[in-house]
Amino acid sequence: MKYKIKSRIWIELDGREFLGEGKFQLLKAIDETGSLSKAAKSLDISYKKAWNLMNAVNKTTPKPVTINSIGGKGGGGTELTAYGKSLVGVFDDMNKKCWDFLDIQLEKIKSL
Amino acid sequence: MKYKIKSRIWIELDGREFLGEGKFQLLKAIDETGSLSKAAKSLDISYKKAWNLMNAVNKTTPKPVTINSIGGKGGGGTELTAYGKSLVGVFDDMNKKCWDFLDIQLEKIKSL
Repeated sequence: MKYKIKSRIWIELDGREFLGEGKFQLLKAIDETGSLSKAAKSLDISYKKAWNLMNAVNKTTPKPVTINSIGGKGGGGTELTAYGKSLVGVFDDMNKKCWDFLDIQLEKIKSL
Repeated sequence: MKYKIKSRIWIELDGREFLGEGKFQLLKAIDETGSLSKAAKSLDISYKKAWNLMNAVNKTTPKPVTINSIGGKGGGGTELTAYGKSLVGVFDDMNKKCWDFLDIQLEKIKSL
């Protein structure tokens, strides 16, 4: 018998979702690819959906999480702001710590 | 600005959901009311749904979580087994500890 404990975390600001798994994954992908269209592709969602999601984050957060990088070799792209990068880092860390914490708790269920 | 962190936890056994929020709420309500129909009513779900949910738990857990109490003043009822009670207690405790833990983590997001 193999037990696994799973969790989903989200943060609300004034009652609206501020950051959850979907938005976190999108921001992480933008950070990794430097482009909203590449990020959308890597998550297998439409550009429109990714754009809406990114806009929803920028509307809820107190500071912008993304900026458009204009020009350069491959044309414009999308990047995370320093605030966006910190947010992704803290959320990722929080998730991992929560999983570690829950793994310890799970031992109690196994021993029942 | 009011930040809140929320989480949902579930446990899987051999890849199938063993205990999550819905099942936990049902078991807790059975424990409080001593009856499956009263538990269903208190959760505002149909008796059929509650019965299916309860059965799903009993099929997945290594030991039964409920027993039928036959006879008595008000006719038969449904009660949690000692194992069922422990499961509810540990899951409840785990959830609360996780929320406390996440509240501490949330301070990092607020300070960004």
